[in-house]
Amino acid sequence: MTRLLVRDLAQVATPSAGPAPLRGRALRDVTVVEHAYVLCRDGVIEAVGPMRELDGHSLGDLDEEIDGTELCAVPGLVDCHTHPAWGGDRVGEFSLRAGGASYEELHAAGGGILATVRATRALGADELRARVDRHAGWMLRHGTTTWEGKSGYGLDRETELASLRAVRTAGGTPTWLGAHAVPPEFGDADSYLDFLLAEVLPEAAQLADAADVFLERGAFDAAQARRYLEACRDAGLSLRLHGDQFTESGAIPLAVELGARSVDHLEATGDDGARVLATSDVVGVLLPASALFLDRPMPRARTLVDAGAAIALATDFNPGSSFTESLPFICALACTQLHLAPEEALSAVTVNAAYVLGLARDRGRIAPGLRADLLIIAADDWRHLAYHLAGDVVAHVIQGGALRR
Amino acid sequence: MTRLLVRDLAQVATPSAGPAPLRGRALRDVTVVEHAYVLCRDGVIEAVGPMRELDGHSLGDLDEEIDGTELCAVPGLVDCHTHPAWGGDRVGEFSLRAGGASYEELHAAGGGILATVRATRALGADELRARVDRHAGWMLRHGTTTWEGKSGYGLDRETELASLRAVRTAGGTPTWLGAHAVPPEFGDADSYLDFLLAEVLPEAAQLADAADVFLERGAFDAAQARRYLEACRDAGLSLRLHGDQFTESGAIPLAVELGARSVDHLEATGDDGARVLATSDVVGVLLPASALFLDRPMPRARTLVDAGAAIALATDFNPGSSFTESLPFICALACTQLHLAPEEALSAVTVNAAYVLGLARDRGRIAPGLRADLLIIAADDWRHLAYHLAGDVVAHVIQGGALRR
Repeated sequence: MTRLLVRDLAQVATPSAGPAPLRGRALRDVTVVEHAYVLCRDGVIEAVGPMRELDGHSLGDLDEEIDGTELCAVPGLVDCHTHPAWGGDRVGEFSLRAGGASYEELHAAGGGILATVRATRALGADELRARVDRHAGWMLRHGTTTWEGKSGYGLDRETELASLRAVRTAGGTPTWLGAHAVPPEFGDADSYLDFLLAEVLPEAAQLADAADVFLERGAFDAAQARRYLEACRDAGLSLRLHGDQFTESGAIPLAVELGARSVDHLEATGDDGARVLATSDVVGVLLPASALFLDRPMPRARTLVDAGAAIALATDFNPGSSFTESLPFICALACTQLHLAPEEALSAVTVNAAYVLGLARDRGRIAPGLRADLLIIAADDWRHLAYHLAGDVVAHVIQGGALRR
Repeated sequence: MTRLLVRDLAQVATPSAGPAPLRGRALRDVTVVEHAYVLCRDGVIEAVGPMRELDGHSLGDLDEEIDGTELCAVPGLVDCHTHPAWGGDRVGEFSLRAGGASYEELHAAGGGILATVRATRALGADELRARVDRHAGWMLRHGTTTWEGKSGYGLDRETELASLRAVRTAGGTPTWLGAHAVPPEFGDADSYLDFLLAEVLPEAAQLADAADVFLERGAFDAAQARRYLEACRDAGLSLRLHGDQFTESGAIPLAVELGARSVDHLEATGDDGARVLATSDVVGVLLPASALFLDRPMPRARTLVDAGAAIALATDFNPGSSFTESLPFICALACTQLHLAPEEALSAVTVNAAYVLGLARDRGRIAPGLRADLLIIAADDWRHLAYHLAGDVVAHVIQGGALRR
């Protein structure tokens, strides 16, 4: 038995218990305990409460004690949408776009997803695993204790499966995004899907928890997305969709019909889409860093929440359209760009994100019996998580009851 | 004599030599040396160049050697606009605004500059110095080796002078921003200026390098700003202006007429203002994090640069409208929101920012004879400085030839 105590915290802040996913007003129901402690045993939260209720006589066998003076605890952050398995980078494309290059010029310069596909295929499995490990380390430094990682920069059998294995090995939850783009060796999306479902799905279904598809003009249309997702569902995978990033293309109705866990992006979603999403338990995963990175319109988070939809927030970590691993930064964007309160942002990067990954039973809140994942914030008000823009808000990270940073 | 060598760097990147301030195309003239070294002696850069030219036989007396493999060096960053001297925080106001509160509701809740003035006056000189020291430490962690720090949250004689002393003690360049707001004990701006110029200026002029004024509706008008700045100039101070943040209010013509070092903000500047600025050596200091934090329009950087104006970029670090100390993050905003190339962003946070502080003779570039201030970036392409959004891009910080991080 190992026990860890965080004592004398200025605040412990946690979203409410659910039922997940939280929606509407419930997203704001964050419980804050002032001058508090959290006690962890064998990787699980044993007790949390005000210091005056800490039962001193039973603490003789502590393995580690952390002084929380002038610090705060929130649940370890959950990043439910990342693309961590890639080689190369896209800094050249980023620089051309920053300097005013058009989409056509970027394409002519060899940019885009397929540039990363070439670099990722060239890595080999060992180097790919090293890259994913490095990216997971970056996430941990920013307080992320649970994360999903997609394949989708391999687009061949070997690299897709190696990506899923690398995510699992690095401690992430793998999502198979075989349907990210059509690779150059296939003439059209349908023949690529034939290959994916016949040659890759059987083993991908053993390695991944969920499947995802990029439903967008130029990638896969609604009929193709349906075909891919239905086959993946039949193979036992949970379902996710990239949808409404640039155009409203039927992703929300399809996600609701198929009972998907989430539909992600939604920058282009209108009022009707928000209403349809709100009738369901499908979570809208918003990715404001991607909108910032590409200087595109932000998702209409306020419209979605006020309509009663459940939302989560994630980094969309990837080399082309959102090169950030920082969920605290995402919370800052949520509060400044999406007009969400810090409490809504916190629920969206913890309990609701855990729900998207099917992990809300034991992640995303600070409560007895849940996994002991804590982000200790270097400020005496937990809302500095969102307030301290691009600052070093992370004092400590505890994952499964162990001090990781 | 102490010597430090950084060897085997993937790249050394530095803006061009000037004449400062750089403007137009010259902002893009960044020299990049591949597989390079930087040699420092007694706090000064002794030599920089490709590894093949490193003269091995003269290196016997090195005090420190840093392996730069897969890293890059750029000049230590220069933050030419910060407000580091304050007590309390404004996280409550931030949260209310995020959740949709109006300006009137924020005011009724006791927000705004005067809330910080109350908290700052209550600190006492020792605690104020401790706060400025902490903030300077945050800046250093993000690669800032030279920074300006304004007073302006005291607005009484004792606290204004204590703020200037605290900035100097922490290693910053103090700017006297007595004319930041009118404190409640004065009935109007003119009688407050009477007090400032008679009671505070004589000693402030001994402590500060420059004077600054907030020229804006609700703060000080153009006639009041002129009166304050002319008196400060006569007392030997260089001049700065906060102008065109919310409204175009005559700041640019006044800055040009008075020969100010800079005019800062410019979110509201139109084409005519850009043309006037471009005729001068007054630097337009752009503060995109402030626009992001308040969800206001970004400054039109492209218009200013293309008109031929000289620009710098800074954090505007302060608790109310820009709670960020990260210049790498400012570079990311420059490239994604202001449509500046990474090269333009680098020049704007190094050599041109040093010019604003009157320090361009020995800061802001990597060249023999300049102060040995280096930011070592944790990537093999220096442009990750701007590309890695809110990421940990800082591998090491060297200030005056000493490894500080």
